Amino acid sequence: MPAPSSAVSSAAFAPPPPAARPGQPLAAVDTPALLLDLDAFERNLDRMQAAAEASGVRLRPHAKAHKCPDVARAQLARGAVGICCQKASEALPFLQAGIGDILVSNQLASPAKAAWLAQWARHARIAVCVDDAAQVDALSAAADAAGSTLGVLVEIDIGQGRCGVADADAALRLIERIAPHAGLDFLGLQAYHGGLQHLRGCAQRRAQALAAAERAGRVVAALERAGVRCATVTGGGTGSVEFDLESGVYTEVQPGSYAFMDRDYADNERGEALRFEHALFVATAVMSTAAGTHAVVDAGLKSLALDSGLPAVWPPGGALRYLQANDEHGLVGAEGGAPLPPLGSVLRLVPGHCDPTFNLHDEIVGWRGDTVECVWPVAARGLAR
Amino acid sequence: MPAPSSAVSSAAFAPPPPAARPGQPLAAVDTPALLLDLDAFERNLDRMQAAAEASGVRLRPHAKAHKCPDVARAQLARGAVGICCQKASEALPFLQAGIGDILVSNQLASPAKAAWLAQWARHARIAVCVDDAAQVDALSAAADAAGSTLGVLVEIDIGQGRCGVADADAALRLIERIAPHAGLDFLGLQAYHGGLQHLRGCAQRRAQALAAAERAGRVVAALERAGVRCATVTGGGTGSVEFDLESGVYTEVQPGSYAFMDRDYADNERGEALRFEHALFVATAVMSTAAGTHAVVDAGLKSLALDSGLPAVWPPGGALRYLQANDEHGLVGAEGGAPLPPLGSVLRLVPGHCDPTFNLHDEIVGWRGDTVECVWPVAARGLAR
Repeated sequence: MPAPSSAVSSAAFAPPPPAARPGQPLAAVDTPALLLDLDAFERNLDRMQAAAEASGVRLRPHAKAHKCPDVARAQLARGAVGICCQKASEALPFLQAGIGDILVSNQLASPAKAAWLAQWARHARIAVCVDDAAQVDALSAAADAAGSTLGVLVEIDIGQGRCGVADADAALRLIERIAPHAGLDFLGLQAYHGGLQHLRGCAQRRAQALAAAERAGRVVAALERAGVRCATVTGGGTGSVEFDLESGVYTEVQPGSYAFMDRDYADNERGEALRFEHALFVATAVMSTAAGTHAVVDAGLKSLALDSGLPAVWPPGGALRYLQANDEHGLVGAEGGAPLPPLGSVLRLVPGHCDPTFNLHDEIVGWRGDTVECVWPVAARGLAR
Repeated sequence: MPAPSSAVSSAAFAPPPPAARPGQPLAAVDTPALLLDLDAFERNLDRMQAAAEASGVRLRPHAKAHKCPDVARAQLARGAVGICCQKASEALPFLQAGIGDILVSNQLASPAKAAWLAQWARHARIAVCVDDAAQVDALSAAADAAGSTLGVLVEIDIGQGRCGVADADAALRLIERIAPHAGLDFLGLQAYHGGLQHLRGCAQRRAQALAAAERAGRVVAALERAGVRCATVTGGGTGSVEFDLESGVYTEVQPGSYAFMDRDYADNERGEALRFEHALFVATAVMSTAAGTHAVVDAGLKSLALDSGLPAVWPPGGALRYLQANDEHGLVGAEGGAPLPPLGSVLRLVPGHCDPTFNLHDEIVGWRGDTVECVWPVAARGLAR
């Protein structure tokens, strides 16, 4: 082995070929890789869009789920009115990709971030949430400085217990604070309950979703009595969306995971109305079988978010189980004495939670049939400011 | 609010200023941000290097922990003999940064990856682990094709129960498989037990670390009786390293987290010999206090890895607790009726697990005193192939 030369230029070290190229066989994709079944994905988009339209509710899918402008474009092409982002910096790649209507469905953590949004709002329709008068003042100062207008939604807490004001009185005080500012446009209410999205039983989830929507509806009615009309009431997620549409309270819904589904959302019992398919997978290769008792695959917790539990081996019904994740390794076992997968073979996993799994990957490999059709950058990955 | 124009060029949307610039006050760093206390970091590096040298054992820090060539350079400048990586693709930014001695302390998941390493091995000293004859053959074919030499270590399982062959007989069969290949250079054994790194009690961890090292030592001795000398026995981690150095079995140790420390490693009871300091933090700002019962901060599980539990609020001994993480939010409570942090204030958190937390961030903000000194790219972030 030659001694390393200190004079070697970095050009001597060529990057490996890309994990996938359009036109390649799906089986040739390098691992670990984030795979998107385009047929299933598009059926999910169509189903959600049709359900929103049938209810007369606007669809504004949440881009925090995927962080990918190409995904957002496919949603807008079907009739989505815009997208949500969760952080100010996350909006940038979507704006740069030509998506001109973005709601940052969250409070900003600093006045500096208000200045970014106000600057961008010269060329796009941008809205953001508030639950404190100081946030209103920072947004107003930023909009005045940029000579732009920011849409503002008052977030109300409908049971999540995270952000948002508690009641109509507190909302009204904020709306009165927004009103005199020329650069701020009061749009209505943000009302989201994340906790109920994952209640397993369909009836229980429906009851709690409708109760949360009713709580929002009571604030809307109280504000109306005070002479304030909420043109927009926005919220909802994949776990509650069929009930949010049914509630008559929301004018706009914000589901994100529906386009992909993950193991955790699939564990929800769902009604017949709005079923989504698994479209998102992580491809992983068996890298060690020396132990004999299990196979080791090359996707661990740096390739799969584990906050909602372990991934499932796809397709369901087989004997293989993803048993344990280390940083770069996954242990796979076989139930009932079934054979373990051989060295070099590739498994497809359904991630436990799609949102933070996207945030671990730089690209999405979209396929149809047995062929790679596209490789989409996860352009907002890591944009957490 | 103007209707968005479809003809707006993406140049209209300027990126926000960087989160930090060298020379800025530390307090001006935007959030969330990964912060490195350079004084504490350098003391950790010095302590580990001195301990390795005092034991006559080489230090090869694991770069999977930080994925940052600037960190590796600081380790090499103090006498580290090279670095470890855990994936083939992860090695590339370190090679490009001039680091010429890299052990991929893992099996490769495909023959294609062997070709990358063999190509790079024309200009650097590269070694990799095997636990199967098929891996040996793939490495040999790749080295022959590239006209280079790859170092090879046989991984043995010393109790981790993940990768690695079970005993000296199995190791010997692989070594015999390696021997005839001109492009392969048998270096010795990889022997790592991840599970024992986090045993809390010092005495218990010492006993198990020494037992694991002894298991490796028995394989070394058996191979010696068979006429095979292991020039290198490499392994160990931050939780076991003081005992690995004491064992007399390892010629080389691979700790990674010692440079930074995290909440999980700090929960280990440690001896006096080798204490490391918290050098790594996530800065996060309070973005909502509307609930009154808690503050909401802007760092959730997309900014903090949670696989080893929640982060701790720094410094210790205060009343604030990070209670719960959502994707982009953290809930912070105050014990004993203490005041909650005000809107816009910035907290410093000690991540639960440093390795996957680095993998969520694109840069490390290094500071000294009250001033940002450097912003280092996490160049191997996301390189999982």
